[in-house]
Amino acid sequence: MVMYPMSDMQYQAVYNTLSFALASMMATTMYLWFRSTAVRDQFKSAVIISGLVTFIAAYHYIRIFNSWVEAYTYQVGKADPELTGTPFNDAYRYMDWLLTVPLLLIEILLVMNLDEKTYSVKSKTLGVGAALMIVTGYYGELTVSGDLTSRWECWGLSMCFFLYIVYELLVGLKAATDSEIDPTIKGKIQLAQVMTVISWCTYPVVYLFPMLGITASNAVVAIQIGYCVSDIISKCGVGLVIYQVTYAKSTKGGALLG
Amino acid sequence: MVMYPMSDMQYQAVYNTLSFALASMMATTMYLWFRSTAVRDQFKSAVIISGLVTFIAAYHYIRIFNSWVEAYTYQVGKADPELTGTPFNDAYRYMDWLLTVPLLLIEILLVMNLDEKTYSVKSKTLGVGAALMIVTGYYGELTVSGDLTSRWECWGLSMCFFLYIVYELLVGLKAATDSEIDPTIKGKIQLAQVMTVISWCTYPVVYLFPMLGITASNAVVAIQIGYCVSDIISKCGVGLVIYQVTYAKSTKGGALLG
Repeated sequence: MVMYPMSDMQYQAVYNTLSFALASMMATTMYLWFRSTAVRDQFKSAVIISGLVTFIAAYHYIRIFNSWVEAYTYQVGKADPELTGTPFNDAYRYMDWLLTVPLLLIEILLVMNLDEKTYSVKSKTLGVGAALMIVTGYYGELTVSGDLTSRWECWGLSMCFFLYIVYELLVGLKAATDSEIDPTIKGKIQLAQVMTVISWCTYPVVYLFPMLGITASNAVVAIQIGYCVSDIISKCGVGLVIYQVTYAKSTKGGALLG
Repeated sequence: MVMYPMSDMQYQAVYNTLSFALASMMATTMYLWFRSTAVRDQFKSAVIISGLVTFIAAYHYIRIFNSWVEAYTYQVGKADPELTGTPFNDAYRYMDWLLTVPLLLIEILLVMNLDEKTYSVKSKTLGVGAALMIVTGYYGELTVSGDLTSRWECWGLSMCFFLYIVYELLVGLKAATDSEIDPTIKGKIQLAQVMTVISWCTYPVVYLFPMLGITASNAVVAIQIGYCVSDIISKCGVGLVIYQVTYAKSTKGGALLG
């Protein structure tokens, strides 16, 4: 992987954002795991899985942070860091998504009114769709400057799977969402779906940064900050909404779900 | 142990796969340990042991990952990493298997309908068989190029114990498997047995890679990725199926097992 020199400001911006994302993931993990005991048995698994998503992300943010630090070094008397020769490994993000994106979809499905068969079919097709979206996206990530043809191709292919998942979340699962009687619970499930879709929409946009004429080192900085923000919304944000849904469902009389 | 130079791509492929396996082991451990509270008392041990298997594997993956990183170093201006002189220690895998393989067999036995005496005999013979399979396999692992005679001999010896365990899982335990009344539970126990056998079958195949004319550095890469995939299926995959068996048995009326 080609590495780009960074100014002090650029280096620090990525470094601090990665650390912020790591802190958010760890804190959300602990909160969700502690609160998993507060919801009814049938929802515990959904809350534990929400915490697993941020747990897995926290692990990868430790790796990404360390990799960033190892790629640059400061010298006495020079303001900007220099390259160490060790490449910054962005593949950690894709390893992370391969595990967390199917789990994120499963945590949403687990709090919805789905019969066992529908749940089983939806979780399989959405899980496979998500894995294909990530694998096809990864190859293009290897190019961030020069000939960007393969990055465009991978983006296009990955977008097909992406649009299928968005369609399923917003349209395919509409009947199940509408079957929620309590308007507060229904609203929160819709919020989780919309937050997922909107925060996911930033990934293909971030992916396009190198094609939008942003120069190499700026593209790297913008990609890292963009992915961090998206990860915090889609993992911490959605996880906390999922917990609220399960908590609301647990405290209701629960005639429907008891 | 002889060390082989790696291209950047080869080095990164192993590095990312090891990290992915580590993340999978940690996440499965946490999920199984949290969910051990959701099953009936008599099955808690099986679920906790399933989590122990992935916990022990996570520890060894941290060691394997660090050993891989310490064996290679990048220099400014060179794309490919260079050898540091520190050997990559693959013995960690055998240390791991020596602990986890008997535990994996025990977690399967624990969820089956076995009387105390049969359980005691089977767990001892299978445990000893597994230990002998691993110890005999280890010696051959020290040779991956040049004269492969000792690798072949070790492979053959190890395969005898391997075939004994496969026979016990698929044939020796058949009566106990067939005694399950619930078809879903029976199906899941068979799934755990078949997943174990199939994922284990990849180990002797991966072991043969150096004999199949795959050149040294490619053999190392293929062995590492192959073992990671097998470990994820046989430890995370089987562990989650074992949890599903215990969960299904716990939520049934349980006249048989109460």
